[in-house]
Amino acid sequence: MSNILYDFGAGRSDPSTFPTEALQAAAVKVIGEQFEEITQYPGNLGHAGLRRAMAEREGQREGVTIDPDHMILTNGSMQAVTLTAEALQENHGDAILLEEFSYPGTLSAYRSLKFDMVGIRLDEGGMRIDHMEEELERLEKEGRRPKFIYAISTYQNPTGFNMPRARRQEMIDLAARYEVPIIEDNCYADVHYEGDIEPAVFALDDNPNHIYLGSLSKILAPGFRLGYIYARPPMLEKILARRHDAGSNYLASAIAAEFYKNGIADHAAHTNPVLKNKRDLTTAGLKHELDDICVWSNPVGGLFIWVRIPDDVDRKVLYESAQANGVNFLPGTAFHYQNRNKPYLRLAFGHLTEQQIEDGIPILARCLRESRTSNEARSFETLFDEA
Amino acid sequence: MSNILYDFGAGRSDPSTFPTEALQAAAVKVIGEQFEEITQYPGNLGHAGLRRAMAEREGQREGVTIDPDHMILTNGSMQAVTLTAEALQENHGDAILLEEFSYPGTLSAYRSLKFDMVGIRLDEGGMRIDHMEEELERLEKEGRRPKFIYAISTYQNPTGFNMPRARRQEMIDLAARYEVPIIEDNCYADVHYEGDIEPAVFALDDNPNHIYLGSLSKILAPGFRLGYIYARPPMLEKILARRHDAGSNYLASAIAAEFYKNGIADHAAHTNPVLKNKRDLTTAGLKHELDDICVWSNPVGGLFIWVRIPDDVDRKVLYESAQANGVNFLPGTAFHYQNRNKPYLRLAFGHLTEQQIEDGIPILARCLRESRTSNEARSFETLFDEA
Repeated sequence: MSNILYDFGAGRSDPSTFPTEALQAAAVKVIGEQFEEITQYPGNLGHAGLRRAMAEREGQREGVTIDPDHMILTNGSMQAVTLTAEALQENHGDAILLEEFSYPGTLSAYRSLKFDMVGIRLDEGGMRIDHMEEELERLEKEGRRPKFIYAISTYQNPTGFNMPRARRQEMIDLAARYEVPIIEDNCYADVHYEGDIEPAVFALDDNPNHIYLGSLSKILAPGFRLGYIYARPPMLEKILARRHDAGSNYLASAIAAEFYKNGIADHAAHTNPVLKNKRDLTTAGLKHELDDICVWSNPVGGLFIWVRIPDDVDRKVLYESAQANGVNFLPGTAFHYQNRNKPYLRLAFGHLTEQQIEDGIPILARCLRESRTSNEARSFETLFDEA
Repeated sequence: MSNILYDFGAGRSDPSTFPTEALQAAAVKVIGEQFEEITQYPGNLGHAGLRRAMAEREGQREGVTIDPDHMILTNGSMQAVTLTAEALQENHGDAILLEEFSYPGTLSAYRSLKFDMVGIRLDEGGMRIDHMEEELERLEKEGRRPKFIYAISTYQNPTGFNMPRARRQEMIDLAARYEVPIIEDNCYADVHYEGDIEPAVFALDDNPNHIYLGSLSKILAPGFRLGYIYARPPMLEKILARRHDAGSNYLASAIAAEFYKNGIADHAAHTNPVLKNKRDLTTAGLKHELDDICVWSNPVGGLFIWVRIPDDVDRKVLYESAQANGVNFLPGTAFHYQNRNKPYLRLAFGHLTEQQIEDGIPILARCLRESRTSNEARSFETLFDEA
């Protein structure tokens, strides 16, 4: 990776909009005023001010009221993913449901915890409810109730898909029927470009067994390592009982709370147009270069574009020649719940400059064409035609 | 706890020596110069500068060289405690050895992970090697090799004991004989008041199976949530394979690295005399008030004094009357590996003012005398006479 000039690999936010001066001011204020708190342990829930700010963030977007005392700050949302899974796990081999293609960090955590992952097939609306029902029925017949459904329903990673409201309701109904909690990972929520915001599970359903995960890694910065869990009692206590790290970073929490004390909307209004423009440049580049042989998603939020590539691409050759030509991306395999080698790749556009995107896509396109064994046009119409 | 004026409960550092201005300057510098890194994921090992600073800290104190690439930054040393235990665990019910009285956070984590804890009896030199050998032999006869020995050998929590070098070597030899790794929790290391510094296990033994845990919570502040693991391959990889939180707080790490870029010695030289004076005030108060009925430790480092109280103290009455009179402490039960109710209490002196210590100890002494069922002098000579 030493000569990567065009890094479409990492799901990172845009560094040019990083609010340096406001965060410097917040840090000076917090360190000066809160040294008494900084010299204490933060407690299992964490910094009250940041929990209030995040409860407001979620509540405003979803139009419901959230109790900050039902929020647990975590070391990024990845601690939230791991902690909630540990809390719900009973035995190695417990079944869980999740998108067939999902976030590699989550897959790696669940693998390490020795869950039996059941991948649910996707279409442009996210997890297919017919397949989810089929798998729930199968598991019930085997006498195995899944411990949870893990869903990134909004601006899904890696596909960028946004599950429509009606399907969210169907998922909730199905989960209720089979008595399975939903862990909704909404870490891209505020990275929104256009169209309606689809409601979160907690905004559609009062069932207190569902768990909601949020993050500041995408809207602010991964280096703050700030995520959170929203869960209501008794689920809240069940999760807290599994936590043993004496609480999340108070210093980073206090700085973020100060920065977001008037809400998150102003910051999102500043950063999202920059990211939207990068999305547009990426899709325009793909349209110009690869329209005859590829299909891709056009996400209304988030940081990722999912590209279906021709079956006859030698994917090893493609990856190696892209790397040799300075282009990094993540291959579809990395996202498959069973690591299966599928004809996809993910482009993350948040961290590159506009120039890098404009220069990088044609290079990737050339590598892709050169790694094919034919010159035929694509044989598929949609992203999820049998791959 | 709302009316606690004398809080001997929490093991916290002194807030008056918190280096506010230096940390403010460090924060401004770091946020201004490292926004490119802050908008990235920190990686599993964490901020390289802080790892270098901590490797230097440990290496200088122990007189050996430490590779910063064998250090893993964690969310406080409690994440280190949990992560290493998870990495070494094979099954629920796995046996582990640890001090009969130990840190409640660790006990709670090990309980939650369903370890079978074997408590090793203590004397003024820490864990008794004869008892450790007895238990190792018993477990071997049962065909059960313990997964690890967890040892706070330096300024032990709650007793304040410091294991002498010769006994450390005996523990190492015994661990080698039974092929059991030692997890050495040295989170109080730099809070040193007087006398020689006893060497860490890694300074006495090249066996790469041992694991070392460090922290900045005691010398700097718990709100930074910075701890670390020092472990060599292949143990290093085994621990990293269990980590799923995408790395420790980059922001807090970068600020601490900037603050400690010239070493930790100057800061320790500033804070330790303040704490030493509080230790002296606490032990002087005990001597003045309770010499006829109690015995206590006189720690050469760390934040805790362990008090053996008379058997005829009604410990429930004592706790409640102390609370009612504004005095907080932790009862012995909280530290026992099986939560057994034993005639001890722990006084943490780091966070109170000198005045609070001078006023608080006589109040505690009065509560203690009033909760007795006799007026007899103490019947024990040492802290560990059969309790």
